[in-house]
Amino acid sequence: MRAEILCVGTELLLGDIINTNAAFAARELAKLGIDVFNQSVVGDNPARLRDALRIAFERSDLVIMTGGLGPTYDDLTKETVAEYFGKKMYLDTESLESIKQYFSKMHSGRPMTENNVKQAYMPEGATVFHNYNGTAPGLAVSDGKKTAILLPGPPLEMEPMMTRSVVPYLKKMTDHVIFSRTVHIIGVGESYVESVLKDYMLSHTNPTVAPYAKTGEVQLRITASAKNEEEASLMIEPVIEDIRKIFSDYIYGIDVGTLENAAVQLLREHGLTAATAESCTGGGISQRITNIPGASEVFGCGVCTYSNEMKEKLLGVSPLTLKQFGAVSEETAKEMAKGVRELSGADFGISVTGIAGPGGGSAEKPVGLVYIAVDSEHYKKAERLMLSRGRENERSFIRITAANNALRLLIEAIHAAAKKGGSR
Amino acid sequence: MRAEILCVGTELLLGDIINTNAAFAARELAKLGIDVFNQSVVGDNPARLRDALRIAFERSDLVIMTGGLGPTYDDLTKETVAEYFGKKMYLDTESLESIKQYFSKMHSGRPMTENNVKQAYMPEGATVFHNYNGTAPGLAVSDGKKTAILLPGPPLEMEPMMTRSVVPYLKKMTDHVIFSRTVHIIGVGESYVESVLKDYMLSHTNPTVAPYAKTGEVQLRITASAKNEEEASLMIEPVIEDIRKIFSDYIYGIDVGTLENAAVQLLREHGLTAATAESCTGGGISQRITNIPGASEVFGCGVCTYSNEMKEKLLGVSPLTLKQFGAVSEETAKEMAKGVRELSGADFGISVTGIAGPGGGSAEKPVGLVYIAVDSEHYKKAERLMLSRGRENERSFIRITAANNALRLLIEAIHAAAKKGGSR
Repeated sequence: MRAEILCVGTELLLGDIINTNAAFAARELAKLGIDVFNQSVVGDNPARLRDALRIAFERSDLVIMTGGLGPTYDDLTKETVAEYFGKKMYLDTESLESIKQYFSKMHSGRPMTENNVKQAYMPEGATVFHNYNGTAPGLAVSDGKKTAILLPGPPLEMEPMMTRSVVPYLKKMTDHVIFSRTVHIIGVGESYVESVLKDYMLSHTNPTVAPYAKTGEVQLRITASAKNEEEASLMIEPVIEDIRKIFSDYIYGIDVGTLENAAVQLLREHGLTAATAESCTGGGISQRITNIPGASEVFGCGVCTYSNEMKEKLLGVSPLTLKQFGAVSEETAKEMAKGVRELSGADFGISVTGIAGPGGGSAEKPVGLVYIAVDSEHYKKAERLMLSRGRENERSFIRITAANNALRLLIEAIHAAAKKGGSR
Repeated sequence: MRAEILCVGTELLLGDIINTNAAFAARELAKLGIDVFNQSVVGDNPARLRDALRIAFERSDLVIMTGGLGPTYDDLTKETVAEYFGKKMYLDTESLESIKQYFSKMHSGRPMTENNVKQAYMPEGATVFHNYNGTAPGLAVSDGKKTAILLPGPPLEMEPMMTRSVVPYLKKMTDHVIFSRTVHIIGVGESYVESVLKDYMLSHTNPTVAPYAKTGEVQLRITASAKNEEEASLMIEPVIEDIRKIFSDYIYGIDVGTLENAAVQLLREHGLTAATAESCTGGGISQRITNIPGASEVFGCGVCTYSNEMKEKLLGVSPLTLKQFGAVSEETAKEMAKGVRELSGADFGISVTGIAGPGGGSAEKPVGLVYIAVDSEHYKKAERLMLSRGRENERSFIRITAANNALRLLIEAIHAAAKKGGSR
């Protein structure tokens, strides 16, 4: 089966919003082992939408569409698809009831506006997908050879509908699944991982093993094609065991997602807590840690000390250290980590201080110079990072990369503490 | 002139990265008044790339392409475009020299690898765009009727090249410009703005006036079409003056970009400083404020007090307040704002405390309940927000919206202080 993604929306053509829907749908299709060779975007224009749909179905059997399911006259995706398949529209009373209920819930009992009725009309024979997060239902239309799947445009509506309704619908259409697991590795570079695993990777075709370099870490993705997820999972297990033997010390998790998620889960697992002291990252690390539901169990406090005064006052960094070594120094990073640990009573203090630019750099301390540190009872470590890639506008890049590395250092420290039997 | 955007990259088709390039290019083309009716994505596959290029040029005069300019054998965008235009490739010695230099700068003098030479080959007659941030030069190929513009895939290379080289190149191709200015309004809703401005908007066609509702603010975009930017600017000026008269108190800036940028610029303008005390936003506000270059002049400290203990210890929130009203309450928000102002010595303290979910909600204090407060010498204010939209997975949405509103409250407070002559 060959699929493509067709997103409808003038705001996408104007660049007012970024097309996260295409990426989300693409990832879900890849997980199902469905090939996607094209993505397109077209505006809310019937003639051009018709053209785009025709081109898509000339190339593909399955077209995933997003957007244009709203209540206004220029939302025409459903009507255009019905026309393509030669289907009439009918009023789906069940959808109408759901829309009324959702509308009432969101607008404190106000009756639904008349134009929302449009959202309950469906092409005959369509499979309707309930929208738990908005008024526009999704739908699938198929003639047995070609299938169009229509999803609402807002990601908060599209994403759960894709996961909950479309993926099961598509699973019935395919006779195999593609299933992946990801081993997260830190402390060694991608080229080292590749050189160690080269023969192994070449000799394994199902499951395959592929490395992905992320900022501050390497991910090994093991992917199996099988009749179902259980079978694929069983095929992957021995490969993970092999990788565990090779990279034991450098593996910080399997399928743990982001660094902050890995850190929070590890802290929870071991009953430990952390606190952050940030300068150039400005609160980005605490923002990411607290984005994980349940972070409050392991994180009580983060401080962003942007000025020297606050580094002294809040974190107890010594004025002498600041004078002698400067705010951007290993010594300051260490004192910040120690300071926030003492301030918060957490098991781990992590800190970042650096020069994110564009201003503030010098010959000895250029833009991109960052120190990170972790402080705990038995494990203390500081690192010097040079994060500039010689590009313009690197401020965000430097800040994100610095935060990634600090989270990596925290994960290392948790592992070290766990080994020492430091769990409570 | 009709344009479209064609992005090349298998990682886009797999959903491994989000297509920010398409949105960036779309925005720049919209600013130039060039219509974009289609966007497409295709993988690093010569036959499918050829097809996509043919379809694009059947519809459009100008195709902006990104990706596939790398040094490896599967980077084929340039070769495919050369073939389409029937141009031979030649080695551009100037590009080769630039690539050598960039390579050496990035790899401490290591000689360039042989496959990078590929990046210096150009279709005959191409206009070459220098890459200040990587090795792949960009280029334009044209036969007088159809034009292809090829840009590197990494956004840190693509974006500056688009702004610096492609926009001037395209300006020469068009006989008019579209120029916009944005008036930022807070404190009144979109429907109120629309109702007040309805007749005005209908009676103005060049410049046009259009409202955009953003989270916690309304933007009025005034857009003129003219021979050049100066002329367009002059046409827009009286419209801005009219809008100033109507919404005087609610306007917090013209072309100020994000809320955090507006806040930082206002603080600088008035010589004032701010500090943040965050609970449910977890450092997101300080992260955003410090993302603005030069924020250190106006921002010394932010604290993320996630636990009650830290709210007491760091911010001096009274245990009684926490016991009587709870951590998520107007009283706690006020004491947090006051506390961080005193702790930091800043002119303004802003605070957020709320329930971001998914857990932690109750009947009296549901997920989405957020209190924000600002504290300063003469202006103190707190607000209760209900940010849930009844959707699933709203944690990020609630956190971002809470941060937006807190920044809005800070901007209001700065304006109030400025009126009182509170500037130093």
